[in-house]
Amino acid sequence: RLFCGVDCVANAEMDGKIVDGWFREKTVLWPGQALSLEVTEVLYQGKSAFQDVLVFRSVSHGVVLVLDGVIQVTERDEFAYQEMITHLAMFAHERPERVLVVGGGDGGVLREVLRHECVKEAYLCEIDEDVVTVSKKFLPGLAASYSDPRVSVKIMDGAKFMDEHAAYFDVIITDSSDPVGPADVLFRPPYFEKMNNALRDGGVICSQGECIWLHLDLIRPMMTACRNIFPHVAYAFTTIPTYPSGQIGFVLCAKSSTTRFEAPLRSPSAT
Amino acid sequence: RLFCGVDCVANAEMDGKIVDGWFREKTVLWPGQALSLEVTEVLYQGKSAFQDVLVFRSVSHGVVLVLDGVIQVTERDEFAYQEMITHLAMFAHERPERVLVVGGGDGGVLREVLRHECVKEAYLCEIDEDVVTVSKKFLPGLAASYSDPRVSVKIMDGAKFMDEHAAYFDVIITDSSDPVGPADVLFRPPYFEKMNNALRDGGVICSQGECIWLHLDLIRPMMTACRNIFPHVAYAFTTIPTYPSGQIGFVLCAKSSTTRFEAPLRSPSAT
Repeated sequence: RLFCGVDCVANAEMDGKIVDGWFREKTVLWPGQALSLEVTEVLYQGKSAFQDVLVFRSVSHGVVLVLDGVIQVTERDEFAYQEMITHLAMFAHERPERVLVVGGGDGGVLREVLRHECVKEAYLCEIDEDVVTVSKKFLPGLAASYSDPRVSVKIMDGAKFMDEHAAYFDVIITDSSDPVGPADVLFRPPYFEKMNNALRDGGVICSQGECIWLHLDLIRPMMTACRNIFPHVAYAFTTIPTYPSGQIGFVLCAKSSTTRFEAPLRSPSAT
Repeated sequence: RLFCGVDCVANAEMDGKIVDGWFREKTVLWPGQALSLEVTEVLYQGKSAFQDVLVFRSVSHGVVLVLDGVIQVTERDEFAYQEMITHLAMFAHERPERVLVVGGGDGGVLREVLRHECVKEAYLCEIDEDVVTVSKKFLPGLAASYSDPRVSVKIMDGAKFMDEHAAYFDVIITDSSDPVGPADVLFRPPYFEKMNNALRDGGVICSQGECIWLHLDLIRPMMTACRNIFPHVAYAFTTIPTYPSGQIGFVLCAKSSTTRFEAPLRSPSAT
């Protein structure tokens, strides 16, 4: 299922996602606007158990991973997202040893987590195995992190994995796709409750928090729910050209009221 | 020349800018990537003495002004740009009384300048009269500023206007389009020299400074040139979904080495 040849290109063009050599990200999530990227070569197209998976090489942004028609990663700007979603949480903790990444099957967040030498156990809990397989094949700059001996990969529902690990993690990062399909539950209060329960004292979380230009209706209740669960909550963002409207936010929550996300507790060179 | 009916729609569709009801911003300035906006109605299309002018109503972003195929303003996100390019400079000056806007024919920067009650004379120097005329007709939320009695509109080259006004202005804001066509000179050292000469003591400037995701090759020499001319220089940015890569920067320069752009000198309520 994971190998792709001539038919794959034909399929991608046939289903209207790639027209005249351009991929267009047109969805109901941001009606009336769409980013297009010019395609050099379709590398993979298939249907996983959970979603459509498309990988192509672009003229301007390197290799691009698309799930259900939505851009997840481009080699050119992925660092802006991976670094921000990871290090805001990691540097707010004095010494994170056990870290869980939920989603993030491309391996990019895992790569950033592993740059902290204090990390002893890094778990990745991705529901869709095909995302991991495809990333290992086509996005080695992200997926190289899988070969680190500190890593355990779990192909399962992140919420279920957390239920089995009460008071275990120092940092939990939820690198989810948009709140439709398999990622929908990751934006709801019961999921934030589960993260709270899976954290040790002093633990922190960072969750993909959507775009302030597009999704205030989702962000507002999410922040309210988090403030009812955690004693300290903050919102941050990064600019990233290939996400809709060029911007994405992060929800940061801490188990301790004294945790602060504004300044790192350690220096990058002493991680 | 400034009235548009059925032919106008047909023209816009014929020249390939609007296909299947979507406008696509495809240019050599950012190859391989393009933002598309869904069009409700083409309001105006014409050729001015300087550039192609297109105005359409969009499904998601209100009225949109396009020059030479590049989005200049949408009603939905224009505030993010106008407020930032204007107020960073205006609030860094103790009491700006004479302000010059170069470019900015849509009137949006002028609107923000006029919110500072200390302003006694506001000049707008736009080279393309059609941009002013079209904006008055289709973008009243921006162009309403033209009716303020403090405003003088000059349809001429901004550099020439500054030559005639040595040591005159407290703040100069250059709201230019991209560095091709009529705006090209506005990114070069001789233009920054002219702005310096046209400022009174304590004066400050803010110039459109392009996108750090796309144009570092242009920004780097521009910053170096500015540091050779002004004793204090800074770079700022805002997020704005309909500009390429969702981000645009600003070059801030001060005639005094003690000017700081990080914190406002006055409060918004006491402008």
